[in-house]
Amino acid sequence: MSGWAAWFAEQRTAREDAGLQRALRPRAADDDVIDLANNDYLGLSGHPEVRRAASDAALRWGAGAAASRLVTGTTTLHAELERELADFTGREAALVFSTGYHANLSAVTVLADKHSLIISDAHVHASLIDAARLSRAAIEVVPHNDVSAVRAALAEAGDRRAIVLTESIFSVLGDAAPLADLAAVCADHDALLVVDEAHGLGVVGEGGRGLVHARGLAGHPHVVMTATLSKSLGAMGGAVLGSAALIDHLVNRARPFIFDTGLAPAPTAGAQAALRLLRERPALPSSIHRRGGELAERLGVPGSAGAVLSVPMPSPRVALAAQAAALADGVRVGCFRPPSVPDGVSRLRITTHVGLDDERWAYAVKVLCQVVDDYRLP
Amino acid sequence: MSGWAAWFAEQRTAREDAGLQRALRPRAADDDVIDLANNDYLGLSGHPEVRRAASDAALRWGAGAAASRLVTGTTTLHAELERELADFTGREAALVFSTGYHANLSAVTVLADKHSLIISDAHVHASLIDAARLSRAAIEVVPHNDVSAVRAALAEAGDRRAIVLTESIFSVLGDAAPLADLAAVCADHDALLVVDEAHGLGVVGEGGRGLVHARGLAGHPHVVMTATLSKSLGAMGGAVLGSAALIDHLVNRARPFIFDTGLAPAPTAGAQAALRLLRERPALPSSIHRRGGELAERLGVPGSAGAVLSVPMPSPRVALAAQAAALADGVRVGCFRPPSVPDGVSRLRITTHVGLDDERWAYAVKVLCQVVDDYRLP
Ligand SMILES: Cc1ncc(COP(=O)(O)O)c(C=O)c1O
Ligand SMILES: Cc1ncc(COP(=O)(O)O)c(C=O)c1O
Repeated sequence: MSGWAAWFAEQRTAREDAGLQRALRPRAADDDVIDLANNDYLGLSGHPEVRRAASDAALRWGAGAAASRLVTGTTTLHAELERELADFTGREAALVFSTGYHANLSAVTVLADKHSLIISDAHVHASLIDAARLSRAAIEVVPHNDVSAVRAALAEAGDRRAIVLTESIFSVLGDAAPLADLAAVCADHDALLVVDEAHGLGVVGEGGRGLVHARGLAGHPHVVMTATLSKSLGAMGGAVLGSAALIDHLVNRARPFIFDTGLAPAPTAGAQAALRLLRERPALPSSIHRRGGELAERLGVPGSAGAVLSVPMPSPRVALAAQAAALADGVRVGCFRPPSVPDGVSRLRITTHVGLDDERWAYAVKVLCQVVDDYRLP
Repeated sequence: MSGWAAWFAEQRTAREDAGLQRALRPRAADDDVIDLANNDYLGLSGHPEVRRAASDAALRWGAGAAASRLVTGTTTLHAELERELADFTGREAALVFSTGYHANLSAVTVLADKHSLIISDAHVHASLIDAARLSRAAIEVVPHNDVSAVRAALAEAGDRRAIVLTESIFSVLGDAAPLADLAAVCADHDALLVVDEAHGLGVVGEGGRGLVHARGLAGHPHVVMTATLSKSLGAMGGAVLGSAALIDHLVNRARPFIFDTGLAPAPTAGAQAALRLLRERPALPSSIHRRGGELAERLGVPGSAGAVLSVPMPSPRVALAAQAAALADGVRVGCFRPPSVPDGVSRLRITTHVGLDDERWAYAVKVLCQVVDDYRLP
């Protein structure tokens, strides 16, 4: 056995011993489990108009963009989606990426370099953490949602360019960032605030315009917004939204944009159709909060600012057992264990969807109450 | 004006002064330019069966995978494609990613950490360079295709885990790596050789199985292969191929896999359909080489090991002018300028496609001969 094979085996054994070994479980197209693990908050991924738009785009344009965006992989579809995303969120311009991960890597690495300072909330997503590392900037991690810690860190920036990283609605705990205060502090220090709206877009703010918009920051010159097309917009891809100058800078400098094939036509058109549906149904996101409030109360956990309820569990193993029990009753929930949790606490992650009809939702609530009762306090 | 706005403006002016400012140019669905800039080498992105498969998948599965692969974003489509990719390339197992970029970031960061040594060919793709940076390993860049330099660097590895990065067919210059020698040197030092087959898969080797397969290395325990679904397979996405233990390690450890939404159904099915077409037409890739050889001779440039002809130009501005002249005659070619060229030399990049009929191909050859004559030696 080569040293590598031995190393892979060792690592696997260590994961198994810690109850952290994972495996992929493919689902079938006719799987009819109630899925409260995914991020398709508005149920738009499977909406007939969204399916149709994605399907038509594949027929019309082919299966791929065939080249990177600057070479020949930009279609009028991309340009339209960018225009509509910018309009919707109230920002000057937008740029679409293959994934939300690419969007975050790009935004951070074009703004920060080894002479910069990055101040990062302790709970930000892996893609922002990787982005910060890739930028080679000095990184200061500050306690979660702590505006004074951000202010103190900015005061030490000196003449370094500084950027501050946060999410609007945090992906695992579902809480919101103090965006207005963060933006004010950033403006005071001429720092940029990069806000990842992956779980805010389509979920919070007027008609789902996101938390940046809801806080009146859509036109703020010190706020850069990133987003995904893979969650409430039901497709795949990411975006950065901000000034036209920022977007021009990204097009010219962002390596994960320049050296990557453009987003395929089908998800591009799917996201566009989802966005148009959302505009036609501005009340859709509010149902998320109604359902979320009701479920939080029944489960005895804090409500969520977004579409994510987080239920702490005593251990990774109990979390897994609880997840399996819910699935046995036809309800799938997320089970987050280290290293996917910001605070090391294993938990169930339950998303409150609008795609389900009232009857299925009521059934899911019943199952979840039972499971949480059985497993939370063993 | 904030410091940031001034900084963006300064950077733009500097790019303009250097002739390096770029902008996106959206193309329409009915654009009928002959496109020798894209990487759709086999013309499969627009093949009726591939369009149909992508289109049907969007109807059947929806526009997105709705969650990360480990949560609930793995469909039977992903699992099938992984099985078929592994079979085709002769490897034990495969894992599909949202982009080739994600595949490279993942492969390198799960194999190397700050205690490792990465030895990287000077011409590797941006995604491998970013991957190496992200891993925090010590990085030694060796001259292009220089096996003795790799051997010498490995001799200094000591007891660090070492990996060597290369492409099979290089993306800009179109030349091939000395894979058999590299694999032998790696085996001697128990190092892993990571081979990016982005431009080899579907292009070289028996039936397009890639250069790893062609060199008899498909079963080699020290060879890890990465690939994209966005080039000859005409869709989008990436893959890592290797032992089942490696794939299990990736599923459990690769942050750009774990924390990213699964590849959307349409491109997954599109890549699968393209792969099946390729299996049914094993002679398809050979036409690439026939056309490439003919064109290289006419242009007076070295032939290509793959599907990419590289034509050096005297300056970025002349390269742009030559590209514009070809486009005015209905032929689009790539124009690579710093920072997208490994050696700082601006060039036209012309891909030899099999998707065009003989008449259009002959017309393209005529246009390109004229343009290169007019611009190469001004
Ligand atoms: C907060 C956050 N940012 C970015 C991403 C990455 O987005 P994508 O899945 O589109 O790559 C995710 C989830 O995947 C996320 O939760
Ligand atoms: C050699 C090489 N590796 C990786 C990639 C990234 O693949 P993708 O475009 O699928 O992200 C590319 C091109 O984009 C490439 O040329």
